[in-house]
Amino acid sequence: MFEKILIANRGEIALRIHRACREMGIQTVAVHSTADSDAMHVRLADQSVCIGPPPARDSYLNIPAILSAAEITGVDAIHPGYGFLSENARFAEAVEAHGLTFIGPTPEHISMMGDKIVAKQTAKELGLPLVPGSAGPIGSLEEITALGEKIGWPVLIKAVAGGGGRGMKVVESAETAAEAYALARSEAKAAFGNDSVYVEKYLARPRHIEIQVLGDGQGGGIHLGERDCSLQRRHQKVLEEAPSPALNAEQRGRIGELAAAAVRRLKYRGAGTMEFLFQDGEFYFIEMNTRLQVEHPITEAVTGIDLVREQIRIAAGGALGLTQKDVVIQGHAIECRINAEHPETFVPCPGRVADYHPPGGLGVRVDSGLYAGYIMPPYYDSMVAKLIVSGPTRNECLMRLRRSLEEFVIGGIDTTIPLHQRIIRQQDFIDGEYDIHWLEKLVGLKK
Amino acid sequence: MFEKILIANRGEIALRIHRACREMGIQTVAVHSTADSDAMHVRLADQSVCIGPPPARDSYLNIPAILSAAEITGVDAIHPGYGFLSENARFAEAVEAHGLTFIGPTPEHISMMGDKIVAKQTAKELGLPLVPGSAGPIGSLEEITALGEKIGWPVLIKAVAGGGGRGMKVVESAETAAEAYALARSEAKAAFGNDSVYVEKYLARPRHIEIQVLGDGQGGGIHLGERDCSLQRRHQKVLEEAPSPALNAEQRGRIGELAAAAVRRLKYRGAGTMEFLFQDGEFYFIEMNTRLQVEHPITEAVTGIDLVREQIRIAAGGALGLTQKDVVIQGHAIECRINAEHPETFVPCPGRVADYHPPGGLGVRVDSGLYAGYIMPPYYDSMVAKLIVSGPTRNECLMRLRRSLEEFVIGGIDTTIPLHQRIIRQQDFIDGEYDIHWLEKLVGLKK
Repeated sequence: MFEKILIANRGEIALRIHRACREMGIQTVAVHSTADSDAMHVRLADQSVCIGPPPARDSYLNIPAILSAAEITGVDAIHPGYGFLSENARFAEAVEAHGLTFIGPTPEHISMMGDKIVAKQTAKELGLPLVPGSAGPIGSLEEITALGEKIGWPVLIKAVAGGGGRGMKVVESAETAAEAYALARSEAKAAFGNDSVYVEKYLARPRHIEIQVLGDGQGGGIHLGERDCSLQRRHQKVLEEAPSPALNAEQRGRIGELAAAAVRRLKYRGAGTMEFLFQDGEFYFIEMNTRLQVEHPITEAVTGIDLVREQIRIAAGGALGLTQKDVVIQGHAIECRINAEHPETFVPCPGRVADYHPPGGLGVRVDSGLYAGYIMPPYYDSMVAKLIVSGPTRNECLMRLRRSLEEFVIGGIDTTIPLHQRIIRQQDFIDGEYDIHWLEKLVGLKK
Repeated sequence: MFEKILIANRGEIALRIHRACREMGIQTVAVHSTADSDAMHVRLADQSVCIGPPPARDSYLNIPAILSAAEITGVDAIHPGYGFLSENARFAEAVEAHGLTFIGPTPEHISMMGDKIVAKQTAKELGLPLVPGSAGPIGSLEEITALGEKIGWPVLIKAVAGGGGRGMKVVESAETAAEAYALARSEAKAAFGNDSVYVEKYLARPRHIEIQVLGDGQGGGIHLGERDCSLQRRHQKVLEEAPSPALNAEQRGRIGELAAAAVRRLKYRGAGTMEFLFQDGEFYFIEMNTRLQVEHPITEAVTGIDLVREQIRIAAGGALGLTQKDVVIQGHAIECRINAEHPETFVPCPGRVADYHPPGGLGVRVDSGLYAGYIMPPYYDSMVAKLIVSGPTRNECLMRLRRSLEEFVIGGIDTTIPLHQRIIRQQDFIDGEYDIHWLEKLVGLKK
């Protein structure tokens, strides 16, 4: 086992990793920017090294500075957390080149999944379902109507060079295909100087379902069930739950087994997440994240498995500590991401945390680097706390969440606690009836 | 189900009950002394009523004041917590006489178990093992030697009128019985004016093992496994764990089944705890507590069952929500009672809590009414927080406890956090090798 690990991150995830290390008897080295000298994880780590000023590119993304810190402090391994360098294959390579262990998958797997085209191709080869559509750019109106008949209307025409919704058209039926095709091509031409378009099945109200996986890098691999992360705003997850209220046992088993089989065929190492859209009983692969996710605690709550400990064990050359049969999903868990933002305008609100008092009691977990008197710097992500509640049933979780949010005191800065209180009062949410657009409709971004 | 519950207690247990009520959609009424106006549970309750000044006899023990508060606020039921009026049969009776529900057992069962002689007699009739000894006062030396041969040496001679160790003599063998008998009688005569003595088997190094039970009052009853509460100082528990590192599966099953059978035969209603001494593979009944225990969270952690919710459900006339088969003990849990006392002299240290920051993360629960700026009054019990950690194995719990104690900040008052840090560093404790005298030896009260 490692003796000392460098944590190449900040905020709650740096604290999360520090805690796992401490509980395994492993020493920790915190690295931090000049803006983070007073951060909780820096205070708790055995050693800390300042690696530069904000913004992140001069510190948390500064590979030479991090490697120097690792060298000076004599660590065995580096845990990248999420964000920053966690999915940077060049960083993983450099870590290994320095004779240290990168706590994560191989650089090859990071690259493979980092390129979204290669990732989808790989997913297809691994037997994961993709959104059906044209193999490449389409050449005629007839191709669209033929595809529409085959994969079912509506379909979506998308610009090959596209992004941001431009050149994108929903086609409800064969009757409107000609007009949409012409419009999409002219928009694509205008926006990207390229009128190439392709066609995909249009998913109007999908859910975001993701499967947590663990692989030993030797062909062993398991899944730890799904998380429903459909509550999003501007593609950022806001509240997640496990299990998903939308899946039945057959669907849950099917997608879990597919994901675990893919991990085994890939010989994937460490923790990862396969993300899918889900609609009308079918799953569609979107991407794979080759790192720990923000929302990993809800999986820990329903499985009883410490994912960071497993990451470290696997990286140290250990076999998987568990078989698929050992993974039993029990009860329900919900996580609220609490951001330092105005709960209605979402304007970030860094500053001095005058009061901090997290909720306690049965079934409540808080992961946060905040403390009373902490001055939150303005340079980084606004997520400042995760509240995770668990209980035997979804309904008990909802009630526990309600009382925990009521107890949570973060004074001096705006937070999204009132947003979460608003979400959990909605009947649709109570009923588990929501898709990836539901939250944006609630907060007024979409109709 | 009840609409509104009055919580006839203070401190962390009042908060614990408030949380369970909130999660069940039940309104809460806090009662408090003039010294507790700023207490956390008073701040969080839907309503609060001041019931008098300190000390407790003028407020938390003032039955008419509590019943008036219940009447004014229109509650359906009263939860007594632990301590104060929780084992006062007269209070339970008065609550019922006012047409309200007492969340606890019947007054008859409270009385029965409150009288230690009746309790032991009842336990015997229920088939629970007692410490073997003479049926009553002994009349001759021959009786002692005969008993010693029968139940095994050493035996303990105790004054019938006794207490505080006076008139108590350990007899190692028949050879020393005559001298000990004479000494015990003369000491008893001197101390209590009564030279009557009786004899019991002497347990030199027992553990304190208690079984959590739940009964529906109709003859249904289950047990929820044991707690090892051997770490005590002056008969106060300091740190508890579940399961006990001293029991094997056969012993655990045997005592659990005996306790559950006793609950069924008694037609006991609600939550209760049967306390035993345990030595050399045998259990000896001490007493039954007819209320929630301070250490109930470790049972919640290893069973996943919310005991306060079950208490409320049962009191509202619900059947047991669970069968014995539903109770599965998983993993391990440890609770540290954190007192506002000097960690070496144990001198209470009430006052202003300048800083308060509880540990967070996976497997950590904190039950505490403290907050930064709270002024702890000097009139009540010094226990101010309970830190409960859980994990798959005892070793993981110990490591988690270590890192959680390290993170816990309670500033401005002395606390026993350093005592717990000292306890968990001891090899005996790490090995699970301790009896009810171990802690007092560690802290210098006993040799």
